[in-house]
Amino acid sequence: MPKADQQKHAISPRRDEDFPEWYQQVVRAGDLAEPSEVRGCMVIKPWGYGIWENMQRALDAMFKATGHKNAYFPLFIPLSYMQKEAEHVEGFAKECAVVTHHRLEVNAEGKMIPASPLAEPLVIRPTSETIIGASYARWVQSYRDLPVLINQWANVVRWEMRPRLFLRTTEFLWQEGHTVHETEAEARAETRQMLDIYEKFVREYLAVPVFTGEKSESERFPGAVQTLCIEAMVQDCKAIQAGTSHFLGQNFSRASGIQFQTRDGKQEFGWTTSWGVSTRNVGTTIMMHADDDGLVLPPRIAPTQIVILPIVPKPESRDAVLKAANELAAKLRAVRWSDALLEVEVDQRDLGGGVKNWEWIKKGVPLRVELGPRDLESGNVAVTRRDQDLKTKAFLNVDEFVRQAGDLLGAVQQNLFEKALAFRDAHTRIITTKEEFYDFFTPKNSNKPEIHGGFALAHWNGTREVEEQIKNDLKVTIRCIPFDDPVHPPQAGRCIFTGEPSARPVLWAKSY
Amino acid sequence: MPKADQQKHAISPRRDEDFPEWYQQVVRAGDLAEPSEVRGCMVIKPWGYGIWENMQRALDAMFKATGHKNAYFPLFIPLSYMQKEAEHVEGFAKECAVVTHHRLEVNAEGKMIPASPLAEPLVIRPTSETIIGASYARWVQSYRDLPVLINQWANVVRWEMRPRLFLRTTEFLWQEGHTVHETEAEARAETRQMLDIYEKFVREYLAVPVFTGEKSESERFPGAVQTLCIEAMVQDCKAIQAGTSHFLGQNFSRASGIQFQTRDGKQEFGWTTSWGVSTRNVGTTIMMHADDDGLVLPPRIAPTQIVILPIVPKPESRDAVLKAANELAAKLRAVRWSDALLEVEVDQRDLGGGVKNWEWIKKGVPLRVELGPRDLESGNVAVTRRDQDLKTKAFLNVDEFVRQAGDLLGAVQQNLFEKALAFRDAHTRIITTKEEFYDFFTPKNSNKPEIHGGFALAHWNGTREVEEQIKNDLKVTIRCIPFDDPVHPPQAGRCIFTGEPSARPVLWAKSY
Repeated sequence: MPKADQQKHAISPRRDEDFPEWYQQVVRAGDLAEPSEVRGCMVIKPWGYGIWENMQRALDAMFKATGHKNAYFPLFIPLSYMQKEAEHVEGFAKECAVVTHHRLEVNAEGKMIPASPLAEPLVIRPTSETIIGASYARWVQSYRDLPVLINQWANVVRWEMRPRLFLRTTEFLWQEGHTVHETEAEARAETRQMLDIYEKFVREYLAVPVFTGEKSESERFPGAVQTLCIEAMVQDCKAIQAGTSHFLGQNFSRASGIQFQTRDGKQEFGWTTSWGVSTRNVGTTIMMHADDDGLVLPPRIAPTQIVILPIVPKPESRDAVLKAANELAAKLRAVRWSDALLEVEVDQRDLGGGVKNWEWIKKGVPLRVELGPRDLESGNVAVTRRDQDLKTKAFLNVDEFVRQAGDLLGAVQQNLFEKALAFRDAHTRIITTKEEFYDFFTPKNSNKPEIHGGFALAHWNGTREVEEQIKNDLKVTIRCIPFDDPVHPPQAGRCIFTGEPSARPVLWAKSY
Repeated sequence: MPKADQQKHAISPRRDEDFPEWYQQVVRAGDLAEPSEVRGCMVIKPWGYGIWENMQRALDAMFKATGHKNAYFPLFIPLSYMQKEAEHVEGFAKECAVVTHHRLEVNAEGKMIPASPLAEPLVIRPTSETIIGASYARWVQSYRDLPVLINQWANVVRWEMRPRLFLRTTEFLWQEGHTVHETEAEARAETRQMLDIYEKFVREYLAVPVFTGEKSESERFPGAVQTLCIEAMVQDCKAIQAGTSHFLGQNFSRASGIQFQTRDGKQEFGWTTSWGVSTRNVGTTIMMHADDDGLVLPPRIAPTQIVILPIVPKPESRDAVLKAANELAAKLRAVRWSDALLEVEVDQRDLGGGVKNWEWIKKGVPLRVELGPRDLESGNVAVTRRDQDLKTKAFLNVDEFVRQAGDLLGAVQQNLFEKALAFRDAHTRIITTKEEFYDFFTPKNSNKPEIHGGFALAHWNGTREVEEQIKNDLKVTIRCIPFDDPVHPPQAGRCIFTGEPSARPVLWAKSY
């Protein structure tokens, strides 16, 4: 490969060369996170955590606006609680980390070892239905105590043999909502409401378009009656599940004893839901928008939205340029956009301008603003959008830029969404034959990694057998059964694999 | 005891009857938290968690204003990391929870058991110096990488045999700051800066006056060179440590290998600090301000600052009263006070007015506003302050009340601080003889629990032996060695126990 080409981009390899390795390099170059020496765990560095904080703030406001409150439940689940729901414990058994001892002591050989065995082992929560259920069983006595609308921000642990930063780690951060309702209809409405909130959140904040629908039985949350999900397509044409909302029926209330006296004096089990999104969505956002020069952040979740780069060719201009840069920053920080004041940084470090510029490119800051001695004279600044060509600068009058900053950020946000939507639409296909389906999901060149496939909408006979066959043959699964669209109702047809009747096409893809 | 007297107060027993039991009942009546069936762990209910969220918001802003960023490090610490600092592992060995297995499987008897033993046991973080140190050792190479100024919001686990809600639980929530500096002076300045932030935080937000100073060697954080602390006095005259900031010298950087190239090209170990406050401060706030009718919340951390109680004696006035109540709430919610919009709730539940009123009293809401049909005619509302007599209502014109709401809340906040300060000062004594000291800390009636003692300022010879003697005799310890006060420099004297020279009096108390 010619050397000139290698220098064109900050990230090596490029997406089309080796997508998984490109992802690791984007995470590293953006200073987002790193693997920990603790197997499967990650360290979320300040830039990565800042993105998560912005996600938290947006989601938290949406939860509270719909009547939910936050609370906190124990990290530890007694093994006996986990076992109360049979499907649930089976679904999570392989992923549990188990505390068996407390206290450390020095043994006869002078080695420090776990000392006191516990009467009952404690599982570190992989999810909290069972431990929260134990509290709800105490809190709920009467229909007057319902609904219970609670969310928790927490860490959870699911032992991971093949970790990948943000996407799949042994410990991750998330929120988990857990609600109890008087009627089935109310619980189903809550399940759908929270999915709709997730769809709105990823669309408006992460600039991520998704398909919404229901999981097939084999992909359901262990113990749920119904799992709803949002499914995004990232730049290697694979699917990422970006949020799930579960209607749990009375399965967990039966297991935990969440019972209430109804309006007509009978005893009934509560109808429960749970729903969650996690730090995985940081990974989704990276894979969705980053390019061969590194991260590209949607402005609404960028920890820094605008970086000002003072250009100081000669020492004697330094003070004046820094002063102007800080004045501009102060003006911008007074601008309210997307429910908050703008986050602006002035990079005053004594490093080469090129080094600094590339650092911010790789961190994906939406707008970079250069300001040098000549700009002081002209009253202009040079503005570069991260979502456009790296060298295309717009020269704007300083005050004009301050006035337009919010609109510019809005334009970046909008552009990222539209690009992602166009990409997804270009790689979503209605498929009507088995041959076409197998062809769609088979790389043309098996010698090297190759981006291929996408989302296939195809009819299915509704059986687990077909799903398993396709999974074995192609590593493709049903990502969701799309919701009924009242405007464009799903058309019935015939399963492309068996010829049997099918009520609607379902969405298939390879996935993370 | 006469029955009439029992009915006077919402909480039984009263503070002066049985302080520990009164505390449990205040927590229960305020719906703040409950013990979990998981040994030593608590469930933080929405009202308790709302207080913690407000504490987090205030502290987080203070940390960020001083240049700190948030990040997140693993929950698990390999046992070998813990052992790198000898004092540290010894200090925490008794409190560690240990993960020894992952995966669950069903054994031959059909019982579910932990399946796969780990090669190295993992300790659940009791604090994160060692695991964060492993990352910092990678991040810090040169003086240019310094300072590292990072905070983490996290759960930690310290196995607790005698748990008490908020004050001492096996799992608790906290923040832990971890910084690395180029010089000793800078690290010492950081340690002090963060203590000063804690002092300001508890004073301004929790209305808690504290003594600030340094811990004696025996009370230091395991592995620290110096531990600074803030110490509050609650209503049973005992001390609570409300925050600590540790200067760690080069102990942990040596243990973790945090080394950097200095400005003159040498290799040196970094100078580190750590500092933290926890959900314990919810307990401190309760014990500081609650009374015999339940919780009394400082307005700046109250999840709801004003509750509006519509009075509906007749069904026909219901609509008009609720409409007026919601209009008033909307006006109040537009008022900005203490860096946020007011949090206002309208209690529309169909319950007796008395029941509702008592519920909010027990939850400690700063202002309760009654609004009934007669108020609609007069244009007034009846306002009751939680920090004053429960029946003393101020009748204010509605718009006047909206204008004054912030000032009223400020007055409640100020009053709580002044009451707490007066209480503390009334129970802080300069003590000059051993006899007086023993008398001060000995209850007069040994047959029933009795509030006694307080803070004693007394000279000490600086030895661990005297500390141990006093601890054994009276359960009294040195809470802090107060900082030098340049205006009132400490007076030298003689140890009241041994007659040996002493540079300054130190602060003694019984403590939580």
